[in-house]
Amino acid sequence: MCYAQIMEPYIHTVHYYETDKMGITHHSNYIRWMEEARVDFLNQIGWGFDRMEELGIASPVLSVSSHYKHSTKFADKVQIEAYVKDCSGLKLFIGYEMKNTATGETVCNGETSHCFMTLEGRPIRLQKEYPQLFEALDKNRIEHCTGQNKA
Amino acid sequence: MCYAQIMEPYIHTVHYYETDKMGITHHSNYIRWMEEARVDFLNQIGWGFDRMEELGIASPVLSVSSHYKHSTKFADKVQIEAYVKDCSGLKLFIGYEMKNTATGETVCNGETSHCFMTLEGRPIRLQKEYPQLFEALDKNRIEHCTGQNKA
Amino acid sequence: MCYAQIMEPYIHTVHYYETDKMGITHHSNYIRWMEEARVDFLNQIGWGFDRMEELGIASPVLSVSSHYKHSTKFADKVQIEAYVKDCSGLKLFIGYEMKNTATGETVCNGETSHCFMTLEGRPIRLQKEYPQLFEALDKNRIEHCTGQNKA
Amino acid sequence: MCYAQIMEPYIHTVHYYETDKMGITHHSNYIRWMEEARVDFLNQIGWGFDRMEELGIASPVLSVSSHYKHSTKFADKVQIEAYVKDCSGLKLFIGYEMKNTATGETVCNGETSHCFMTLEGRPIRLQKEYPQLFEALDKNRIEHCTGQNKA
Repeated sequence: MCYAQIMEPYIHTVHYYETDKMGITHHSNYIRWMEEARVDFLNQIGWGFDRMEELGIASPVLSVSSHYKHSTKFADKVQIEAYVKDCSGLKLFIGYEMKNTATGETVCNGETSHCFMTLEGRPIRLQKEYPQLFEALDKNRIEHCTGQNKA
Repeated sequence: MCYAQIMEPYIHTVHYYETDKMGITHHSNYIRWMEEARVDFLNQIGWGFDRMEELGIASPVLSVSSHYKHSTKFADKVQIEAYVKDCSGLKLFIGYEMKNTATGETVCNGETSHCFMTLEGRPIRLQKEYPQLFEALDKNRIEHCTGQNKA
Repeated sequence: MCYAQIMEPYIHTVHYYETDKMGITHHSNYIRWMEEARVDFLNQIGWGFDRMEELGIASPVLSVSSHYKHSTKFADKVQIEAYVKDCSGLKLFIGYEMKNTATGETVCNGETSHCFMTLEGRPIRLQKEYPQLFEALDKNRIEHCTGQNKA
Repeated sequence: MCYAQIMEPYIHTVHYYETDKMGITHHSNYIRWMEEARVDFLNQIGWGFDRMEELGIASPVLSVSSHYKHSTKFADKVQIEAYVKDCSGLKLFIGYEMKNTATGETVCNGETSHCFMTLEGRPIRLQKEYPQLFEALDKNRIEHCTGQNKA
């Protein structure tokens, strides 16, 4: 059974300025698209950057990784699915699967990891201090999902 | 006679990620290079962003313009000369001339305009409130220059 | 009377990576948004980059200018209207008006100019060689418009 | 004994437009700096992009990863050391160590992986087809290094 919400897919259309002299999307842009999809994902589960900021929660990026499967080109539409890979309460791992909407093929898989801190830099234990945020993330863990939101 | 200081030239080497699918530098990057050259120019005349910030002076961009003469390619070295076009005390106009160091040809001319404000948003009259900054800028006006710093 | 088509508005949502340390959108991004809106505009009038490319028409950027009226912030939605300011047949001038959709205020006005060339670099006289493209552009000149598409 | 050449360090100065609303360098830029350092590294070992291109060798990015240790700020100088982690002949793994030159602390560690292909897309076995390039890379493997070039 999947507790995960059914998400609206996030679509990024490749901009001309995102291409490089090989005629394809420069690989650095996928890192930015992960951020776009993460922002959208957190909005959709009700924990957007604005709400976190109001509560004084910062969530810096600790690491990123990206595996390129197929190139994309100017004007391609890329659907980016973000999902929680793991959330221990101290660290959050978000996974990303990017598909070319025209072909359905996976063009890139990615991952980012994050911690949670107060604006003064004190580590936050989500499960204890913000159980509702923890639950919202945990509910969207990939293990809880089948189908639409599963990579 | 030229009161202007002899400036160290600012050189930007075109990065691979700055090219686009036409195989040349994407035009938006020249706007960023103007900022790089402006930062360097202000450092060289002793009024870097850090000093301005300490004094509580913000200098937002009001406008930019850019005229493209010749394209540049990956790994080209572009020399960017920044100079003061006009400084009325309320508004600052900085001009930019960008040359391909290999050919000597001008690849782009640009201009930015700026105002001066306190961090709270009150307009600053440079000539009255920061006469030393005004002088440093005025000394580097193009009318005062011949040769090396003249576009 | 306005021959101009009623265009679907183009909306850009400000990405986190488009902000700078002043907490607002970095000014260089508006130049990129003009390109996004231009691509969308040309698609909407039936002359997208792909069609032009197939016909062997290149349309390089000769100049850009941008006037900043109000800053925008992360997650702001910016509506960008592109329209033809002038099209002499040799040169095309496109204007842009960008509005914050939440406040309705104009945040930036811009302009780009372009020429038309074959892929080998020969100048193209639109009116003679591609009269249909010329007409499609001319119909969307601002003089022909009232209301929705008029800046 | 270290066969590796003593490399000139590659330094990137953080640009204003690379900062974000948290007041620090946006994490996506480090991915671009890796490319800058890789280009410089290949130039220094005599196998720049231009030479590879002339020989018809493409070397696309298969993956990137980046671990953020400390943030950097506008105007910080970051020294980026690139070195070969592994070169099997089919795949090349390049490592990156980025240090704040003012403090000496490591701000980011990264890795990219690459394959080699002809411009038509046929995989190239470096060791067999371009033994000189293979050797140049192998000589700069981290195992061969102590001191200056060792991460």
